[in-house]
Amino acid sequence: MAYINVPEGVPGIRSLVLFRPETGKPLYELAQVLLRGPSPLTPAERELIAAYVSSRNNCGFCRDSHAAAARSLYVQETGAGSIETGESVVDDVMNDPAQAEVSAKMKALLNIAGKVQILGKEVSEADIAAARAEGADDREIHDTVLIAATFSMFNRYVDGLASWTPTDPEVYKEMGQRLATNGYVSPKPVNQI
Amino acid sequence: MAYINVPEGVPGIRSLVLFRPETGKPLYELAQVLLRGPSPLTPAERELIAAYVSSRNNCGFCRDSHAAAARSLYVQETGAGSIETGESVVDDVMNDPAQAEVSAKMKALLNIAGKVQILGKEVSEADIAAARAEGADDREIHDTVLIAATFSMFNRYVDGLASWTPTDPEVYKEMGQRLATNGYVSPKPVNQI
Repeated sequence: MAYINVPEGVPGIRSLVLFRPETGKPLYELAQVLLRGPSPLTPAERELIAAYVSSRNNCGFCRDSHAAAARSLYVQETGAGSIETGESVVDDVMNDPAQAEVSAKMKALLNIAGKVQILGKEVSEADIAAARAEGADDREIHDTVLIAATFSMFNRYVDGLASWTPTDPEVYKEMGQRLATNGYVSPKPVNQI
Repeated sequence: MAYINVPEGVPGIRSLVLFRPETGKPLYELAQVLLRGPSPLTPAERELIAAYVSSRNNCGFCRDSHAAAARSLYVQETGAGSIETGESVVDDVMNDPAQAEVSAKMKALLNIAGKVQILGKEVSEADIAAARAEGADDREIHDTVLIAATFSMFNRYVDGLASWTPTDPEVYKEMGQRLATNGYVSPKPVNQI
């Protein structure tokens, strides 16, 4: 049970946004523009960074929902007939990005995201140079750092108030498909959750 | 020098928002509603939580600018003729909240903020119960957790991209007065920085 009186049966951040819609609005707008707006990183790549950071922060709700969104988007983006590729990549990255089948540029960006997850000052000139050597530009580096920072916030918000974390994998699968299709739409208070 | 090509001579998050205004907009809106909008916590109390978390994250730019804002707001709120009281409280909290001259409720909320700074799951039922025993309500607990989570983001964003951190204390004093008076206004690209 959450530490504050949020609507029952509403998972994770959605329950907090229903409790406090004034702050929920810019939070959802940030998620939408950062994860779905124009960027040299694809939505799947951005969701992968979100899932990776959430996994490192041990935030089950954010990890499982964004991992599901990343899987769903990878399948859309690669046009693969099966979800297997996407599933495998996302799980592999959460286990160890260095061993996962992602590009060298993506590995270098995930390394930066992992440093940001610890603390901003952990990101070194060498980390940035390594990403540039693999072709990353300013915008990709910026978006990687901001996604990692943003999920360092969302993870703390969701877990710091002990919001409800469903345990049924099917819930996350559905959530991932919805996030892949509709993006980040702030929850409405009545019958639209 | 920042890791990406941001406008020169613009400090901290303002330079990053000029680089990427699409994400800057919801970030500034979040800061404005969370730190200046309606809340049972005063703006000074909210800036104090922001400064405390930024101090724990060793983010000099955020710590010094929000500490300055908190000092300025404490003087306004208490109507004190001198800035000394505000300065003393803010510095004392950053040194050790338990020894600072703030209310027992504020100490309990700062304890929660400190837990969130580490990680969301660090906040325990006992931490929440201790805050409630001092009179904290759901909204105060919510806002404390979200402020601490939000500055866990801002700190990582500002330092993860090595944005410019001025060292002149006068710069922060002016910044604090501006933040106390005008709140969070997204920087404009031309001649309005």
